[in-house]
Amino acid sequence: MPAGQVNRMSATAATVPTYPPPESETEEAWVWGQIKAEAYRDAESEPALASFLYATVLSHPSLARSLAFHLANKLCSSTLLSTLLYDLFLQSFSSSPTLISAVVADLLAARHRDPACANFSHCLLNYKGFLAIQAHRVSHLLWGQNRRPLALALQSRIADVFAVDIHPAARVGKGVLLDHATGVVVGETAVIGNNVSILHHVTLGGTGKAVGDRHPKIGDGVLIGAGATILGNIRIGEGAKIGAGSVVLIDVPPRSTAVGSPARLIGGKDKHSTHDDLPSESMDHTSFIQEWSDYII
Amino acid sequence: MPAGQVNRMSATAATVPTYPPPESETEEAWVWGQIKAEAYRDAESEPALASFLYATVLSHPSLARSLAFHLANKLCSSTLLSTLLYDLFLQSFSSSPTLISAVVADLLAARHRDPACANFSHCLLNYKGFLAIQAHRVSHLLWGQNRRPLALALQSRIADVFAVDIHPAARVGKGVLLDHATGVVVGETAVIGNNVSILHHVTLGGTGKAVGDRHPKIGDGVLIGAGATILGNIRIGEGAKIGAGSVVLIDVPPRSTAVGSPARLIGGKDKHSTHDDLPSESMDHTSFIQEWSDYII
Amino acid sequence: MPAGQVNRMSATAATVPTYPPPESETEEAWVWGQIKAEAYRDAESEPALASFLYATVLSHPSLARSLAFHLANKLCSSTLLSTLLYDLFLQSFSSSPTLISAVVADLLAARHRDPACANFSHCLLNYKGFLAIQAHRVSHLLWGQNRRPLALALQSRIADVFAVDIHPAARVGKGVLLDHATGVVVGETAVIGNNVSILHHVTLGGTGKAVGDRHPKIGDGVLIGAGATILGNIRIGEGAKIGAGSVVLIDVPPRSTAVGSPARLIGGKDKHSTHDDLPSESMDHTSFIQEWSDYII
Amino acid sequence: MPAGQVNRMSATAATVPTYPPPESETEEAWVWGQIKAEAYRDAESEPALASFLYATVLSHPSLARSLAFHLANKLCSSTLLSTLLYDLFLQSFSSSPTLISAVVADLLAARHRDPACANFSHCLLNYKGFLAIQAHRVSHLLWGQNRRPLALALQSRIADVFAVDIHPAARVGKGVLLDHATGVVVGETAVIGNNVSILHHVTLGGTGKAVGDRHPKIGDGVLIGAGATILGNIRIGEGAKIGAGSVVLIDVPPRSTAVGSPARLIGGKDKHSTHDDLPSESMDHTSFIQEWSDYII
Amino acid sequence: MPAGQVNRMSATAATVPTYPPPESETEEAWVWGQIKAEAYRDAESEPALASFLYATVLSHPSLARSLAFHLANKLCSSTLLSTLLYDLFLQSFSSSPTLISAVVADLLAARHRDPACANFSHCLLNYKGFLAIQAHRVSHLLWGQNRRPLALALQSRIADVFAVDIHPAARVGKGVLLDHATGVVVGETAVIGNNVSILHHVTLGGTGKAVGDRHPKIGDGVLIGAGATILGNIRIGEGAKIGAGSVVLIDVPPRSTAVGSPARLIGGKDKHSTHDDLPSESMDHTSFIQEWSDYII
Amino acid sequence: MPAGQVNRMSATAATVPTYPPPESETEEAWVWGQIKAEAYRDAESEPALASFLYATVLSHPSLARSLAFHLANKLCSSTLLSTLLYDLFLQSFSSSPTLISAVVADLLAARHRDPACANFSHCLLNYKGFLAIQAHRVSHLLWGQNRRPLALALQSRIADVFAVDIHPAARVGKGVLLDHATGVVVGETAVIGNNVSILHHVTLGGTGKAVGDRHPKIGDGVLIGAGATILGNIRIGEGAKIGAGSVVLIDVPPRSTAVGSPARLIGGKDKHSTHDDLPSESMDHTSFIQEWSDYII
Repeated sequence: MPAGQVNRMSATAATVPTYPPPESETEEAWVWGQIKAEAYRDAESEPALASFLYATVLSHPSLARSLAFHLANKLCSSTLLSTLLYDLFLQSFSSSPTLISAVVADLLAARHRDPACANFSHCLLNYKGFLAIQAHRVSHLLWGQNRRPLALALQSRIADVFAVDIHPAARVGKGVLLDHATGVVVGETAVIGNNVSILHHVTLGGTGKAVGDRHPKIGDGVLIGAGATILGNIRIGEGAKIGAGSVVLIDVPPRSTAVGSPARLIGGKDKHSTHDDLPSESMDHTSFIQEWSDYII
Repeated sequence: MPAGQVNRMSATAATVPTYPPPESETEEAWVWGQIKAEAYRDAESEPALASFLYATVLSHPSLARSLAFHLANKLCSSTLLSTLLYDLFLQSFSSSPTLISAVVADLLAARHRDPACANFSHCLLNYKGFLAIQAHRVSHLLWGQNRRPLALALQSRIADVFAVDIHPAARVGKGVLLDHATGVVVGETAVIGNNVSILHHVTLGGTGKAVGDRHPKIGDGVLIGAGATILGNIRIGEGAKIGAGSVVLIDVPPRSTAVGSPARLIGGKDKHSTHDDLPSESMDHTSFIQEWSDYII
Repeated sequence: MPAGQVNRMSATAATVPTYPPPESETEEAWVWGQIKAEAYRDAESEPALASFLYATVLSHPSLARSLAFHLANKLCSSTLLSTLLYDLFLQSFSSSPTLISAVVADLLAARHRDPACANFSHCLLNYKGFLAIQAHRVSHLLWGQNRRPLALALQSRIADVFAVDIHPAARVGKGVLLDHATGVVVGETAVIGNNVSILHHVTLGGTGKAVGDRHPKIGDGVLIGAGATILGNIRIGEGAKIGAGSVVLIDVPPRSTAVGSPARLIGGKDKHSTHDDLPSESMDHTSFIQEWSDYII
Repeated sequence: MPAGQVNRMSATAATVPTYPPPESETEEAWVWGQIKAEAYRDAESEPALASFLYATVLSHPSLARSLAFHLANKLCSSTLLSTLLYDLFLQSFSSSPTLISAVVADLLAARHRDPACANFSHCLLNYKGFLAIQAHRVSHLLWGQNRRPLALALQSRIADVFAVDIHPAARVGKGVLLDHATGVVVGETAVIGNNVSILHHVTLGGTGKAVGDRHPKIGDGVLIGAGATILGNIRIGEGAKIGAGSVVLIDVPPRSTAVGSPARLIGGKDKHSTHDDLPSESMDHTSFIQEWSDYII
Repeated sequence: MPAGQVNRMSATAATVPTYPPPESETEEAWVWGQIKAEAYRDAESEPALASFLYATVLSHPSLARSLAFHLANKLCSSTLLSTLLYDLFLQSFSSSPTLISAVVADLLAARHRDPACANFSHCLLNYKGFLAIQAHRVSHLLWGQNRRPLALALQSRIADVFAVDIHPAARVGKGVLLDHATGVVVGETAVIGNNVSILHHVTLGGTGKAVGDRHPKIGDGVLIGAGATILGNIRIGEGAKIGAGSVVLIDVPPRSTAVGSPARLIGGKDKHSTHDDLPSESMDHTSFIQEWSDYII
Repeated sequence: MPAGQVNRMSATAATVPTYPPPESETEEAWVWGQIKAEAYRDAESEPALASFLYATVLSHPSLARSLAFHLANKLCSSTLLSTLLYDLFLQSFSSSPTLISAVVADLLAARHRDPACANFSHCLLNYKGFLAIQAHRVSHLLWGQNRRPLALALQSRIADVFAVDIHPAARVGKGVLLDHATGVVVGETAVIGNNVSILHHVTLGGTGKAVGDRHPKIGDGVLIGAGATILGNIRIGEGAKIGAGSVVLIDVPPRSTAVGSPARLIGGKDKHSTHDDLPSESMDHTSFIQEWSDYII
């Protein structure tokens, strides 16, 4: 059986495993199995998409090759050929297995947190935020290998194609969701923790032309609403929530909520309320409304 | 005469009809006649653009075919061929004539409301907001036909190419103007009424990971300023005006004006002033300045 | 020696001139020499990028040809061929030498102000803001030559590819830095002075559907933070600083700082503090925090 | 069910009909059913080809659309877009149903006569001679409609892509097999009858610069061997056989065999033997060897 | 008036000049005027081709730019960009004006000798033999400048795209017609005189692996029929005629006719007849039939 | 050092090893070292080609990857993506090491036998015959793995791009030179031995529509001249020579020479002379002229 041949048995509805995967299977294998089953089902029901699904998913023997193929064809240009990028992604994924475990974690994050994400293959194929992060991880790897010109060229392609601009030196955790993603900007010394959810138009920016450590550090489990601008080498504590459109210039304590331009803590600086849930997972943007005192519409 | 041949008689300045079209002609026929006359004039005066104008406009026998051709070439990728998309758009336009009447209404809206829109062909060819909406209508049609994987793939291409991210399930009225359009995000259960004007970077977003009806409902004739973020299953009343950069989390009454982050009504919650004009048509973003009490520059 | 052959002597580390260039050399020649030396060094150390660097930089005899080539390949589409755009850029650059002196000024601005800009070639090749401005200058030239349909088509390509939407009629000075750039929108009658720095998501917009002079005038040396929205025919005085996320609807005095939505002057309308540095050069976004009274996180 | 959806029932081995088709089905429907069944089977067994097969065959509702799609993608160039050619082929096939009946006849001819043609889909997708003839029929249609510049542009693309150069004015019958096809040249006033088989490198050429009727007339059922050159307004009688490498300048009687350079009849001019079979169907190139008196190896 | 704008006055039927051009006009200017008039007329009558005609002809200010554009788009590949080739052709044509005078001579030759060549623009746009020769002249120029790797890369592209394989070192005169052209092979030390006509599948080949001068020398005005193979450092005298399919291994005297495999002179070695006309111009391939003694069909 | 980085030491003229390679190096390593040295030298002297040379040669760590990359970019189409073909070639080369040893043998053959082949990189990059054979070997491998639809699709691309049509089932030895190559056709059951040289337009064809073993068997060391047509299941003995333009229908004895149409042995059937050299290596096409009795020019 040629590499990549669809095992139709595993694609029938009856045998689609449920989450969590059985102990006999790795998470990666389980997710990849799900993706192939979804793609197979979609190719059957929608011939107009079947060519796309076979090219990007069903002809590949692994998640790594499928993603490398898809990213290469998305990010290529007339001066950066798809075959060159394909090589680059394949080599990166095979030399750094943690890249693929991060892919799996991000897929699970999207499926878990985004109600519009009906299945894994939709995220893999269509989510520009997901794709931008995976390509960023490769540019970050190159940066660490001191292959900086190539890392910067890749950043540029990601910024052109997905309108997501993440400096190759920025460090990004696992289980990260960039929802919608258009316009996200992340600076050179920014750090994004694990299980963070970031909406579109979010900036993790610097504070001027000073060199050195000058960008935000985002703790685990933070939720950053659409259009929020976070500037400077400040710390957003774990589990904090940043309201949409906020401008944040000072540290935000863990599990607190900051809103407004300039941002204030819900309840004020000293007696601000804290929440117990992880907002990046609940994706709850608005339950703090009633506490936002001057919100008077 | 081959289909699509330019009837030069109709293109001479003298015979260009004025608005409104004569009773003997449908609005679509009139707009299409205008577009061809404009394109013919531009091709004559600018040979460097003539190839583009013939390919996209002048070689086509109808507005539907011209738009299908243009969208297919804009949205295609190496894994979604232009010929496949062309087929898809042609079939959608011919099976759902309301799509083309919405195209005409949007063209008239752009011409009527946007002072930078000097003519119809400029909007048809160059306005990414206009093109994104027309492609969205097709993805919405596919969604309704339960062809969801294809609808989502189309959404993804629109998001990549135009940086406009509209969920296929979102319902959009006629006569809608997406001005500049970059960064617009519209969620799954959002509804946009007729004659709405939306500037760039506007979000009609959800409030968390809850499923179900969770996005804004925008009434007829609403104007939403640049960068406004409207979150949750709230209602923006007909003819309301949302200031640029506002963050809106609660219903806004009809013909009122909400500004700020978080947004407040001009004049306050109880005695807010209402206006009589349709702001989406006047596109008046700033006349409320004097009423915005703490605006102190 | 064929045009464009690399003079390796000039590329060795020992002979790389330091800034400012020696009197015997024009600024353009010096910058171009730097770019070739950088590209040659990068091509040697990174074969995967060498093809790209030779195609875009090292095979060209001048900065103008290199940039024309790069822009043509970036902005082309299936209906606007790269060869056509290449012709257009070459002719524009050779007929209007000021275009190239502005290119040089913008390169120096990026290198000077942006700490992430490690070298000139990175800016030339990868900065979408830099590329968008240079392409805009050509569309502005065409607009002035009354070749408006072509100017608008070029604007449309810039908006698609870089997500930067600058009306061809807008006037832009020299030494301008569009940092990150995604989502920048500049209206028809806007004017941007010299040495201005503009972050991403910035809008210089109009106030409605009125025709005529309706967009902001940005003075020399202004710094506009990420996500700022400046609306109407207002004047931002020279050396002023606009905070990230601000919404500005009224004139801002020179060398003052406006923040918030709606924007207020730091220190208030009457006793606002002024600064002496040029904020567009210091790129200082946040030193005013302590003066922003209700910033209470 | 969306147009083009694969009916898997009809694709199972058990229900593949045998030739001739049942009376209840047209030949076109039967051939198209065969092609889809073959493509479906191949896509299942070879995922690396599935994308290609879905794009070209399985996503299409008819043979005409599949062929139009395939030819458009084969013959397009950067200055003749695939969408334009797709339109042209679709319109031609729908306005001239005889084009499709000729397609079917040619598919049957290839399957019947060429032992290397294992199935219909192989011919449809891979035979450059088959594809060249179908594209020629469209250029011939355009020629007859007095759309000569377009017909000649299409001829040029066929000559570039398939190395088959047939003047649009040349008349070609049904059931024609161009085997291998590279290098075939057919002049303006040539006529090719029905059920003719022509090998590669065959020329049906003129005799000088005289205008008017100056090219060969090939009777029904003729077989022309590889590399044969037939020049002038001469007649190759029905069922005649032209040996490989022959140069023919004078009429050849029906059902006779001409070989050599210059060509002679087997058996001589007066007592040449005739054969009863149709050589274009038996594809017998060499049984006349023993009669070729000076063949002395 | 932008460069390249169509002067419609000069394109009207009444003012199309007749051949020869008036004394006040160079041959190049006259031919270019003809081509633009033809293309303008065709674009008007055939909108489906107008885009192609504007891109390749009507948007260009000179024959040299039009041809450079067309060749660049024909010969480019994913690793040899059209912009790079465009540069190369433009520079070659501007540095070596004799290249363009040869273009004009070849256009006149095609128009004069080929009855299927109805107009100049058809030859310029569609004749692969014409285009292959013009590209060869550039590769020959590069060869002479000792830029051999580039010359060989260009030869390779010509061989792929047009199936015409001419070594860059081969010398080709003016007024040369490569009719149909597929399969023509011309070796390194071959020389082709002026006003030569060569049909498709013709080989001017070497005789083994010996280096040095080893290919044929073709005199002025020679006509070489389809499929003729001429091998070795032999001389085909001026005005000689080589029959289709001939294999020629020995010198052929001027104004004589050689036919057959191996080729013999019409009339025999000692008393061969000579002709007075220039066969490359009369393109008479077959009038010698009656003299070819064993031609007995 | 990233994979593929150019080791400039090995590229300097002084250290280029001479043939045969030192015992310490495999032939493949030696050839690959030569190719990189040549490409490096050419990239330095010709910047316009450097991008191409880095993309195809200098960025790759092995001959196999360079060739896979080059073939993928040559043979791809809009429906068979370069990334898919790249995968296919890489997998084939790594699973079947004999493919690469055949590549090396063919490179040595071209360099050894073709006086126009100045260096290995020229053959690797520009020789369509060389490239066609290497791609054929992969299609042959697929055929043997019973992946026939993919093998046939690859054959079709080779036939389109290189005008070389070799059935995937045909068996081809090592050290084979397809010189010029345009128009070569090789049938399903043909066998080509080792060290064979075949000129362009050569056909190894069948004799009719009979299935089974029906194509020629070409012995080791055979030389087949341009345009020769060899038909049927006949045997061309080792070291035999087939004259250009010959038509061969009967076995040819080893080390004899057959010429003409139909072909005869030099010297006649019974007393034909034999030669001692290997004609495929001497490439001597014409020394038999004096023995060809009726050659009378």
